[in-house]
Amino acid sequence: MFEKVLVANRGEIAVQIIRALHEVGSQAVAVYSVADQESLFVRLADEAVCIGDGPVNQSYLNMQAVISAANLTGCQAVHPGYGFLSENAAFAQLCADCQLTFIGPSPAVIDQMGDKENARQTMQRLGVPVIPGSQAVLENVDAALKSAHELGYPVMIKAAAGGGGKGIRAVNDDQALARAFQTAQQEAQASYDDQRLYLEKIIAPAKHIEVQVLADQQGHVVYLPERDCSLQRNHQKVMEETPCQVMTSAERLELGQLVADATKKLGYTNTGTYEFLMDQQHHFYFLEMNTRLQVEHTVTEMVTGIELIKAQLTIAAGEPLPFAQADIHVQGTALECRLNAEDPQHDFRPQPGRIEQLIYPIGTLGVRIDAGVVAGSLIAPFYDSMIAKVIVHSNQRQTTLNKMRRCLDELMLTGVQTNQDFLAALLNTKAVADGTYTTTYIEQDFLKGWLNDAQAQVSSAN
Amino acid sequence: MFEKVLVANRGEIAVQIIRALHEVGSQAVAVYSVADQESLFVRLADEAVCIGDGPVNQSYLNMQAVISAANLTGCQAVHPGYGFLSENAAFAQLCADCQLTFIGPSPAVIDQMGDKENARQTMQRLGVPVIPGSQAVLENVDAALKSAHELGYPVMIKAAAGGGGKGIRAVNDDQALARAFQTAQQEAQASYDDQRLYLEKIIAPAKHIEVQVLADQQGHVVYLPERDCSLQRNHQKVMEETPCQVMTSAERLELGQLVADATKKLGYTNTGTYEFLMDQQHHFYFLEMNTRLQVEHTVTEMVTGIELIKAQLTIAAGEPLPFAQADIHVQGTALECRLNAEDPQHDFRPQPGRIEQLIYPIGTLGVRIDAGVVAGSLIAPFYDSMIAKVIVHSNQRQTTLNKMRRCLDELMLTGVQTNQDFLAALLNTKAVADGTYTTTYIEQDFLKGWLNDAQAQVSSAN
Repeated sequence: MFEKVLVANRGEIAVQIIRALHEVGSQAVAVYSVADQESLFVRLADEAVCIGDGPVNQSYLNMQAVISAANLTGCQAVHPGYGFLSENAAFAQLCADCQLTFIGPSPAVIDQMGDKENARQTMQRLGVPVIPGSQAVLENVDAALKSAHELGYPVMIKAAAGGGGKGIRAVNDDQALARAFQTAQQEAQASYDDQRLYLEKIIAPAKHIEVQVLADQQGHVVYLPERDCSLQRNHQKVMEETPCQVMTSAERLELGQLVADATKKLGYTNTGTYEFLMDQQHHFYFLEMNTRLQVEHTVTEMVTGIELIKAQLTIAAGEPLPFAQADIHVQGTALECRLNAEDPQHDFRPQPGRIEQLIYPIGTLGVRIDAGVVAGSLIAPFYDSMIAKVIVHSNQRQTTLNKMRRCLDELMLTGVQTNQDFLAALLNTKAVADGTYTTTYIEQDFLKGWLNDAQAQVSSAN
Repeated sequence: MFEKVLVANRGEIAVQIIRALHEVGSQAVAVYSVADQESLFVRLADEAVCIGDGPVNQSYLNMQAVISAANLTGCQAVHPGYGFLSENAAFAQLCADCQLTFIGPSPAVIDQMGDKENARQTMQRLGVPVIPGSQAVLENVDAALKSAHELGYPVMIKAAAGGGGKGIRAVNDDQALARAFQTAQQEAQASYDDQRLYLEKIIAPAKHIEVQVLADQQGHVVYLPERDCSLQRNHQKVMEETPCQVMTSAERLELGQLVADATKKLGYTNTGTYEFLMDQQHHFYFLEMNTRLQVEHTVTEMVTGIELIKAQLTIAAGEPLPFAQADIHVQGTALECRLNAEDPQHDFRPQPGRIEQLIYPIGTLGVRIDAGVVAGSLIAPFYDSMIAKVIVHSNQRQTTLNKMRRCLDELMLTGVQTNQDFLAALLNTKAVADGTYTTTYIEQDFLKGWLNDAQAQVSSAN
């Protein structure tokens, strides 16, 4: 195992990586920005190196500064966490060039999966189903209409040169498609100097289902039980659970084997997560692959007993995985809520500031809080607003929900506004109770009513 | 399930009972002393009733005050926790007389097990092995010598009228027995006005092994995996783990069936724990039965997934246990450390005072802290010095030990002295590493060396 590892991240994930390193007997070096100098992760690290100012491009995204800190402190490896440099192929390559083990997959595969169209084509080649789309660019409206009839409405018009939301239109019928085609073409031309368009089927209502894999350097690949991350707002996950309440074990097995096979064929190592949309008929469509640890890996740990950061360290150190697919079982259900410093009543605006009182609802079986903050912590304006993850696990899903309710009721945090009440209300919905929620549930079904209720409460209190 | 339950306890166990009640949808009423008015358990309760001053006989032991609080607030049941009134048959009877469900066994069985000689005889009758002793009182030295030869040295001379340490002598051979007999007789006469003596075999070195049972009102009884509570100082448990590292699964099964049978024959309900000594040949000898929840029930929860306070509520509410013996499996290993506000370098003197900073080492899989205190909490001088339990669980014992080490290293508590360093040092011993420690390990093998080391560190720092 590594003697000393640099943690190229901040907040709760830096804390958890440091703890995992300590538990396997390794030393942990933190890098931090001036804005993070009082942070818990800096205190918990064995050494800490300040690498710049608060804004991320002046510190956590500064590859040279991170690499220098690793060399200066004699680290053998770098754990990138999630976000920041974790899916940056150039950074992974720079680590390799500097004789530092990057704890993640190879730069080549990061690059391959980072290009979303490349990833899509690769997956299709490997037999992983992708979202149906027109096979080529569409010359004109007639070609588009023909393709739309093949795919079935609703469809998305997309710019082939793509990205950034320009040239994108969702359409429900021929009239709308005919109307939107030319506008989209013009927008694509204006934005990318490339007017080519293609169509993609819209999968809705859908569940966001993802499957994480572990792959060692000896060629062993295992898949882990799926996570249902459909509770999203503004494409950000809000609550995640495992297993998905509406999938069968046959579906779990089939999807798992599919991604395990793809992982082997890719020559992929370390950990990664395949994200899918699942439609009402339980067809799966590949969205993208995250070539790193994910925020919500915790729920998988709770139901399998496998510690994923430690598994990453094991793999990166060149050791074989200490378990096989047959050793992986799902025990009970787990749920995670992301506690954010934000104001849900004002468009979820981030709320920097200083936490005054903070008492976590720890205690009783199956409650885990992975947090980056304690009482007195400063929440800097430069970073993601997530400050803690409340994770619960039990043998029965109803107990899991009851435990989470208790935790959200009990949590005492003053000084900054959080989404605690929003999470508690979401937890109490029928869609969450029965596990049928889809990716549009929060924004299309829940949010407006909740905002009205919250507003009414404020009014009646005034 | 009960709508409202009174929690007749304080500190960490009151906190955990309140949380369990909230998770099953019941309201929790706390009773508290003036000294505890700022305590966490008072804040977490739905209602709280002050029942008197700090000293326990003016509050937590005041049965009438507790019952009044329960009636006043409309409770249907009383959970006594451990200590205080939890093994008081008169209190259990008083609850029954006042139409309150006492969450524990019947007053009759509490009484029966509370008398230690009665309990011993009952167990012997039920086929549970007890510590061998002379069958009757010994007329003279010759009878004593004859009995000692039958039992084998070392033996304990005990006063038949017993208790309180008077008339008790440990002897290793004939000479010592002959010398001590008359003195013990005189001491017994002086103390109890009864000079009768008997002998009991001394089981040493021994492990303290205990088995908890759950028994519902429908006659179902299950036993839980054993706990090894041999790490003790001054008859107080320091660390507890499950399963015992040196017991075989055949021994686990045999001992479990033995106590389950005894529990059935006793007509026992709710939860209780059979405490045994296990000698080097793995013979078991009944010590006593605790007719209540124990401090260390947490480790059992971690390896079985069964929540014991909830099981107590289920049973007390007249519902059948939702699992059978065949459903109970041991998954991994769990270890608990008792964090006490005490000064190990000065005879473990309790350290009342106000906690300043307190950051718990939560996070990562399998870490649980059951605490009664937070930053700023006042530790009153009237109560037990235990302020929190650090509990860890993992699939492998070495990982469990590593996790506990990380937790004890990481815990930040200022303002009062604790046994944190003492626990960390104990954890690092070979006896703990291999699980072979016995009940005398701390006091006979560990403590002196640790005190010398601690003293040397203080000296070199000065």
